[in-house]
Amino acid sequence: MIQTPYLLFLGDAPDKLAAKVAQGIKDWRPENAVGQFRMEGCGTTVDLPDMTLEEGIAAGAKTLVIGVANRGGVISEAWKEVLVQALQMGYDIASGLHNLLRDENELMSAARVNGQTLFDVRIPSVAYPIANGVKRTGKRCLAVGTDCSVGKMYTGLCMDAEMQKRGMKTTFRPTGQTGILITGGGVPLDAVIADFMAGAVEYLTPDNDPDHWDHIEGQGSLFHVSYSGVTMALIHGGQPDALILAHEPTRTHMRGLPDYKLPSLEALRDMVLPIAQVANPACQIAGVSVNTQHMTDDDARAYLAEVEDRMGLPTTDPFRYGAGVLVDALEQI
Amino acid sequence: MIQTPYLLFLGDAPDKLAAKVAQGIKDWRPENAVGQFRMEGCGTTVDLPDMTLEEGIAAGAKTLVIGVANRGGVISEAWKEVLVQALQMGYDIASGLHNLLRDENELMSAARVNGQTLFDVRIPSVAYPIANGVKRTGKRCLAVGTDCSVGKMYTGLCMDAEMQKRGMKTTFRPTGQTGILITGGGVPLDAVIADFMAGAVEYLTPDNDPDHWDHIEGQGSLFHVSYSGVTMALIHGGQPDALILAHEPTRTHMRGLPDYKLPSLEALRDMVLPIAQVANPACQIAGVSVNTQHMTDDDARAYLAEVEDRMGLPTTDPFRYGAGVLVDALEQI
Repeated sequence: MIQTPYLLFLGDAPDKLAAKVAQGIKDWRPENAVGQFRMEGCGTTVDLPDMTLEEGIAAGAKTLVIGVANRGGVISEAWKEVLVQALQMGYDIASGLHNLLRDENELMSAARVNGQTLFDVRIPSVAYPIANGVKRTGKRCLAVGTDCSVGKMYTGLCMDAEMQKRGMKTTFRPTGQTGILITGGGVPLDAVIADFMAGAVEYLTPDNDPDHWDHIEGQGSLFHVSYSGVTMALIHGGQPDALILAHEPTRTHMRGLPDYKLPSLEALRDMVLPIAQVANPACQIAGVSVNTQHMTDDDARAYLAEVEDRMGLPTTDPFRYGAGVLVDALEQI
Repeated sequence: MIQTPYLLFLGDAPDKLAAKVAQGIKDWRPENAVGQFRMEGCGTTVDLPDMTLEEGIAAGAKTLVIGVANRGGVISEAWKEVLVQALQMGYDIASGLHNLLRDENELMSAARVNGQTLFDVRIPSVAYPIANGVKRTGKRCLAVGTDCSVGKMYTGLCMDAEMQKRGMKTTFRPTGQTGILITGGGVPLDAVIADFMAGAVEYLTPDNDPDHWDHIEGQGSLFHVSYSGVTMALIHGGQPDALILAHEPTRTHMRGLPDYKLPSLEALRDMVLPIAQVANPACQIAGVSVNTQHMTDDDARAYLAEVEDRMGLPTTDPFRYGAGVLVDALEQI
């Protein structure tokens, strides 16, 4: 686990999109961040107090989290100077960048000398077991998408937040680097060796109280040929009791695959349920989560009503209108 | 690619089972092996001429292939002595053992000094791309099983051999270490990083002549929760035109999963076809391959007739009774 709280490194992020990891931490685990660190030329903010490295330490920060994408895939000299200083002052550093912290000699040696840890959350740090398929106690919910990047992580985070509000036992279980940085731990599933994928998910969601819900972060899509194997391992390793179908209605083709059309929600439902019931015969589809960010409020509400009627399942955009109806459905399971 | 022909190292294999990789090479690509090398205490044979390392070189052998499982997972001192000699004499060495050749310092330095190559075929040697899902030319057949280890590799090898006999254009495409050693190349799919699995299969089965068939070696099972993600990637990366359902009727539960019953052939058919049609809408199920090794001839024939009738698909044990009816079906596609 990455030590919290964090100081969020925004570096020279030009805009909001570049700082989306920092924004995710601010939105979902504000208690994990004491402030933001911005450099000369930073063009955005996540609306946390600006702090120097010294002020961050004084506020209790343990880890400097790279909350920004790096331009051109290079960890610049200007960044490195700050990161080395941070290590010298006693920060660990955590990053989800493609370029690894551990591949930078100056960072490695500064970390060694100062006894600090570099967390490259894209790379597994655990030798995961092969899945054994044994039924675990506690309950699990997984969002599965008609495509990649349709809002599965946000669906899980929204349901987790709603359950927290209701005083229910709940944990969000990250399977990608943004989720791992938000909560401080998880499994970078897309980087796990094929034979150990399902075992990594079992490891991520161990036995728990009978009334506890794990919200497992979804990945890929059964209909996305590049990543469907990862989705499959998530379903069989996760043994979900409840599935949420996730959809983005304005997509014209599968992400990155111009020749592939999106499946209907019905096609997703019909494919995923028998697959999930291999690992958990009691699994059911509990609701539909629609990402309506590209629709007007009127269009979104009309679309949600139409889907709810057509599918006979509670349907919402949990980020826009709350996850209440989805959590209501899970309370019946 | 591993250079052929091979000298097959049987070491001190106690019995037939321990030498099954060597036996596979002898059975399926006898032209790839000039002879066998046995040590003191070897209790089995694959019925090839016994040769010293010198005789192997004289017969043209380029690679010494470890055709045997090592006891207790250790590469013994007695083995190492032979392997170092072989490197000094100009052999490459290829192995599918869990313990890697490259982790043995004596072998690494002997290989370096002599300019020879160590092939650990369990480990990918290529940086595979992410799958792009683009339709490829040529035809592809994939066996999918109700369980792991039900005869998918043998089904592919039998169909490839039958097509060769008929003068058809055909290639067997290995996805596991035994298949890779048999043919000299392939993708060790279970050791590939999750995000690149489907891309590795695309890489393995590139564009080809319109009337050429790739027989892609199957892995795992959609119903085996430990490995189903690998199977999924194989189906979506492989874009098969034809699927063969593979089954072993005497299994009482899924391999290694005592709580999981085997699915029916009907359940496999109903699950796999919509999945395969995501990547190739023209995909069809061409036949059924039954592993009848634990049945009498009478029982086997009766069972095959019953399945053929029930499923309405050509059904055979291709290893016992030939792959003719399956290849007949593919000739219609």
